[in-house]
This record gives sequence, C-alpha cells and structure tokens, in this order.
Amino acid sequence: MAKGVGPVETRLFTFGSQKPFVCENGEEIGPVTLAYEIYGKLNQARDNAILLFHALTGSHHAAGVNPDYQGAGDRWTDEIHTGWWDAFIGPKRSLNTDRFAVICVNWLGHCYGSTGPPSIDPATGRPYGSTFPRITVGDTVRAHFRLLDHLGIERLHAVVGGSVGGMMCLDVATRYPRRVRFVVPIAAGLKSTTLQKLHNFEQINAIYKDPDFKGGDYYAGPPPNAGLSLARMIGHKTFRSLDHMQELAQEKVLVSNELVRLPIESYMWHQGEKFVKRFDANAYLRTMWAWQDFDLYRQADRQGMTVRGLLAEGSHKYLAEGAHKYLVFSIDSDVCYYPVEQRELTEELKGAGLDVDWITVHSEKGHDAFLLEPHLFEPHLRYHLEAEWFRR
Amino acid sequence: MAKGVGPVETRLFTFGSQKPFVCENGEEIGPVTLAYEIYGKLNQARDNAILLFHALTGSHHAAGVNPDYQGAGDRWTDEIHTGWWDAFIGPKRSLNTDRFAVICVNWLGHCYGSTGPPSIDPATGRPYGSTFPRITVGDTVRAHFRLLDHLGIERLHAVVGGSVGGMMCLDVATRYPRRVRFVVPIAAGLKSTTLQKLHNFEQINAIYKDPDFKGGDYYAGPPPNAGLSLARMIGHKTFRSLDHMQELAQEKVLVSNELVRLPIESYMWHQGEKFVKRFDANAYLRTMWAWQDFDLYRQADRQGMTVRGLLAEGSHKYLAEGAHKYLVFSIDSDVCYYPVEQRELTEELKGAGLDVDWITVHSEKGHDAFLLEPHLFEPHLRYHLEAEWFRR
Repeated sequence: MAKGVGPVETRLFTFGSQKPFVCENGEEIGPVTLAYEIYGKLNQARDNAILLFHALTGSHHAAGVNPDYQGAGDRWTDEIHTGWWDAFIGPKRSLNTDRFAVICVNWLGHCYGSTGPPSIDPATGRPYGSTFPRITVGDTVRAHFRLLDHLGIERLHAVVGGSVGGMMCLDVATRYPRRVRFVVPIAAGLKSTTLQKLHNFEQINAIYKDPDFKGGDYYAGPPPNAGLSLARMIGHKTFRSLDHMQELAQEKVLVSNELVRLPIESYMWHQGEKFVKRFDANAYLRTMWAWQDFDLYRQADRQGMTVRGLLAEGSHKYLAEGAHKYLVFSIDSDVCYYPVEQRELTEELKGAGLDVDWITVHSEKGHDAFLLEPHLFEPHLRYHLEAEWFRR
Repeated sequence: MAKGVGPVETRLFTFGSQKPFVCENGEEIGPVTLAYEIYGKLNQARDNAILLFHALTGSHHAAGVNPDYQGAGDRWTDEIHTGWWDAFIGPKRSLNTDRFAVICVNWLGHCYGSTGPPSIDPATGRPYGSTFPRITVGDTVRAHFRLLDHLGIERLHAVVGGSVGGMMCLDVATRYPRRVRFVVPIAAGLKSTTLQKLHNFEQINAIYKDPDFKGGDYYAGPPPNAGLSLARMIGHKTFRSLDHMQELAQEKVLVSNELVRLPIESYMWHQGEKFVKRFDANAYLRTMWAWQDFDLYRQADRQGMTVRGLLAEGSHKYLAEGAHKYLVFSIDSDVCYYPVEQRELTEELKGAGLDVDWITVHSEKGHDAFLLEPHLFEPHLRYHLEAEWFRR
C-alpha cells in the first residue's frame, strides 16, 4: 500500500486588509484569513494543482496527520486529526502527490481557522457572531481563488469535491471556466432541492429556537448546543442509509436518558452530542444558507441563459485549448443528493456538448460513501486525473 | 350528491372511576373520559358498527359540522369544525349511515376531549402534564373497546383507519380477532420503520429542548410552541409530496421574518404556526411514543409466534364464522408509510391464509391523500363494506 502524506501543517493566507472582501449580498468583510493545506509540490509552471473542496462540516485538513493545529481551539477534536480524505491523497494514491499539488481550504465563514462568525472582528474586538455576512457558495469559491491568485496558480488541473463541495466544483466551472480543466462533482447537483431546503430549514429553526442562540451573539455565554445537536440529527439521517444506521445502532446502546429509549435514538443522540464539540452554530447556519441558495438555474437565468448555456459558455470560451471534462459520481443509496440529481446534471452537461463520464457506485452506506468507501471512487479518479494530465 | 350527516354532537363516556385503567407499561389512570361521535344508528343486533380511527392529530369529529363543541377549548379551531372524513360518511356515502353506525373516538392521551395530559388530575386538581402515562397503540385500542362494551357492541362490522389509525386497525385484528370481521388499514404498516423512528425522535427532541416545555409541566406558563411548531414542520414534510408542497408554496408567500426567506420555508413555517393553535405538546409526545413503539413483530415474538402466526391465529379462532377480510390501501407517493410497507403487510396476510385486497391509489399529494382525495378510496370502501355485510 502506498504511503500517505504523513505529518502536515496548516498554513494561513490573509487578504482584504486594505479593501474588504465584498460578498454577493453586498455585505463586506475584511481582513479575511483562509486556513489551508497543500499536499505535494506545485511544479514550476504552477499548473499541477488540484483544488479539493471539503463538505459541509469538513475542514481544510484532508490528508495526513495534524494533531497539533491550534487555529480551531477545542473544535480540533481527535476525530479530525487524520485528514478526511487521507486514503485518496499521497504518493501513488488517486490524488497522486508525486505529480499533483492538492490544495484544500477551509470555507469562508466556517470554523476551522478561516475567518468565520467565531473570529474576532478587529473593528469591535469581539466575535463577529450575528454580524458575520451570510456568505454564498460563490463567496466561498471567490475567496478560494484569492488564495490561488496569491499562490500564482492561473489554471487548476482539476476541482474535486463531494456534496456541497461538489456544488462548489460546479460553481468554479461556471464562474471561472478558463481556470480549470477537469471537474469532479461527487454526489452533488445543479441546485438545492425542495427536500434539502426543508431539511435545512428545520435545522436553521432548531438553532434559532434554542434560547442560548441569542440571535447569534452567544459567545459570552453557553453555546446553543441543544439546537445545534438537534440540527445535526436532522441532517445526519440524510448522510447515511437507514440500513447502515440501523446496523450501527444495534452494535451498542451508547446513551440512556429521559429522551432516548431505542437503539436508533441512542445512535442519533450520540451523533448530535459528538458534533457540538467540534462545530460552531453560527458557522453551521452559514453553511445551511449557502446550500439553501445554491441554484445554477437561477444563476443562469440572471445572465439571460439556460443552465445548459451557462455550462456550455465556459466550454466555448475555452474551446481552443480543450473544453471541460467532467467526471460525475452518484451513490445509489444516497438520500441527500439522489442519483436523479446527477442524471439531471449529466443530461445538462451532455446537452452543453461537454465530455462527461457518469459513474454510479453501489454502496449500502448512503451519501457519506464518498468519505467511508474510498475504493469505490479511487480507480476512476486516479485514471482520469492521469489521463487528463497527459491529454493537455 | 348524497347529503352528509349534518350537525352532530360529541358524546362522552367515562370509565375507570372505581378501578383505574392499567396501561401496558403498568402505569394507571382513572377516571378516563372518551369523547366520541356516532353517525347513523346502531341496529337492534348491534352488529352494524364501523369503528373509525383518526390519525395522529385528528379528532373524534369525523363527519358533519360541530362548531360549538367546548370539550377542547381553544384547540377546537375553525379548520376542525367540519369532520375530517366528511366526504366519506353519510347516507349513501361510502360509510353509509343508512346501514351502518360509524363510531369515531378521540384517542386516550390526546387533546380533543378524551382524558389526556392537559386534563385535570382529580388527585391533584392540576393538569396531568408530565405525570400522564406513556400510552401505547394497544392502550388506545383497549380504551376504545371499553366504550364498545358500554354500547353493547360485541362485534364490529369493520375497523377503518389511516396512518397510525391504520396501525390501530391491525392492533384490533390481532388483539380482539373475534370482535371484528372486516379490517381496512390505509397507508399503514406492521411496525414503525427506522425512518419514522428518526423523524419521531427529532420531533420529541424539538419539544423537549424548548425551555417552555419544562419537562411537560408547562400549563401554568406559556406552552412550548417553538418546539411544537418545529416538530410539526419535521412531521408535515412526510405527509405531503414534495411536488404538492412546492406547488402550494408558490401560490403565495405567507410570512416573512428573520428565519423565513424562501416560499417553501414560508409554507412550512405556516404549517407549524397553524398547528400550535390546535394541539397540545404533551399529547403530541404521547402520539409520538405510541407510534415509536408499535411493532407487531415484537408483539408476535412476545407471544412466541411469527407475525404471520399472530395474524393467522385470530383468523383460525374465528374460522367457523368466516375469517378476517382485509382491504389494504397504498398511496404511490407516500413517503411516510411507503408502499413497500403495505407490500410486506399484504404478504404476511396472504401467508396467514387471509383474504386480502391490496389497492394502490395514484396521487400526487402523498400520504395525506387519504384525507385530501376521497374519490380515490370511496369506491373500494363502499363496495367491500356492502359486500362483507351481505356475506355475513
């Protein structure tokens, strides 16, 4: 088995000190710090970078071990110390660090070291809290590209991401079509669906209705853990298949209290309790809103195009040097981003005249299979990342 | 069009004054009052009764108009004044009151006039609140049969119910096999599923985590409406199809506040707000727990049988006079009780050697189609209720 990347360190990049970063809704924020890691080395041409997006509650720490990072305080719990895609990234691994430089950045508005609601607002000396902007997927992507500019990366070899991270891949391809060649959205879709919106809205409610939330300005008191843990429970059930959760729940009864009576209740309660130790409620709300508002159809409409046109436009501009190549993954048991969403995405991509391979992996674990079962994704990822490299 | 039953009055029946009613978990309660209505007349043989179970948040007021009922206080809102199955019940209607006496009873532990958590405990002079027992589906059914005993009804012509009310039909058929002939579970199943358990547990959490809940003893202060409305939102999305909700949401934006930004959010918020006006949080918890624990497989196991054996046993005992006849309904768009659950039920019934007709109706509205689209159910109900009557 190929070795991983070993110990890694988180790096910081700060921008917007002079002129603040302007969010899509017009709100301003600055300075902005981004926490990120790089695995492998940028080549001289700086054209061997893969930008990897983490998912909703992930971090920039995607590979190797990083137990000593201080930038997220107590939220840097044991379960995060090994990178969330460690099996994918390293010398000779699918994201081969002998060839590629893999970059992963903590989202703007998140809570693992990039500027977010728990960060200190230099204007007040207190945490941003409720005053932190409601950032969008586009804001996060634009912030990421400030870092790429800083690193001198004009064009990415690939963007890769799962779930909302997959939506970010699609945002890159349509926002900066000339700056990427190979696009890999995993278990994602062109827009948030009605069911996702309902689940997200329930979670937003759960946090808001916790009296400890105090509209978002809770940092001087206890955090709204009751609301955040309920939000996590509501979300978590869409990330795993029912069979998988039922199986895990039978293994042991973890907790017993006034509310918890059944094994599946105990399993879910534990998910909520574990989560509040490693996440911030205000940052969670920002991820919910960003997801809620992602809609490439609306984005296209604003530009007077169809979504197919939006996907094609990037391709056309870029055609002289080779259009976008897409690798789309579905997970058959996914009830968060149902395979029908990737069917729709694939149809639009094909309709736009783009080269797309669509792969459905069969898993019993649900949406999170892209985190839990690397072997289902590695061969295709490895093959296409290499093939696209030599096709340049 | 046949006329309905017109104005109706709620009746009360009280039992357990001397000797309390003992719940399945050993807790005791008494006296117990049940609120009920009867449409049509019991014949001299008292063998023409149809017992109709209401669903989770329904009431005993199934047909006709009853605007003046005082037994539920402010919870008797306008939307309840016309019976929830009015289209089904009346002279010449599917549940034909020229022939049958249709009885509908508010569940024990509910909040529309039957003894429940908001009722005054005669021992303390205060509402039961947290001390009210955690009743089961079986407790509710057993309480219903105390009323049937009082009315001199030895054998029902039929039991009919949708959703958890359908589970009650299955409980009757296995608990009192000799006391019913025709069993009509609509959009129900043999046990609560993992997904139902998760949704229910989220709702239980939402109520418990509202600080106004105070462990259930909130009647002297404000009710836990924030938690109850969130619970309703979580539940409601399983009662309607996504397309149907999306369509209703587009019709108008009902509310706008800090939390609500999208039409589907507004639609769902409104569902929560409307609900808290007509329901009690403690009673809602009892319905959740009862649903959570319903499991005919476990019930059979306790009696040393398979579920097929349990369903058959009633039939065998009863065979001299004709075994149970079942009419099972599925709704193709149901995401609360998926059609696969009725497939399982039907297979067990057939395996038990019972006569079962299984009908799937095609609706775009989801689980609540049995409330919203009577015409999909009426013909089969009418046909079989008559046929079974003349087959006696």
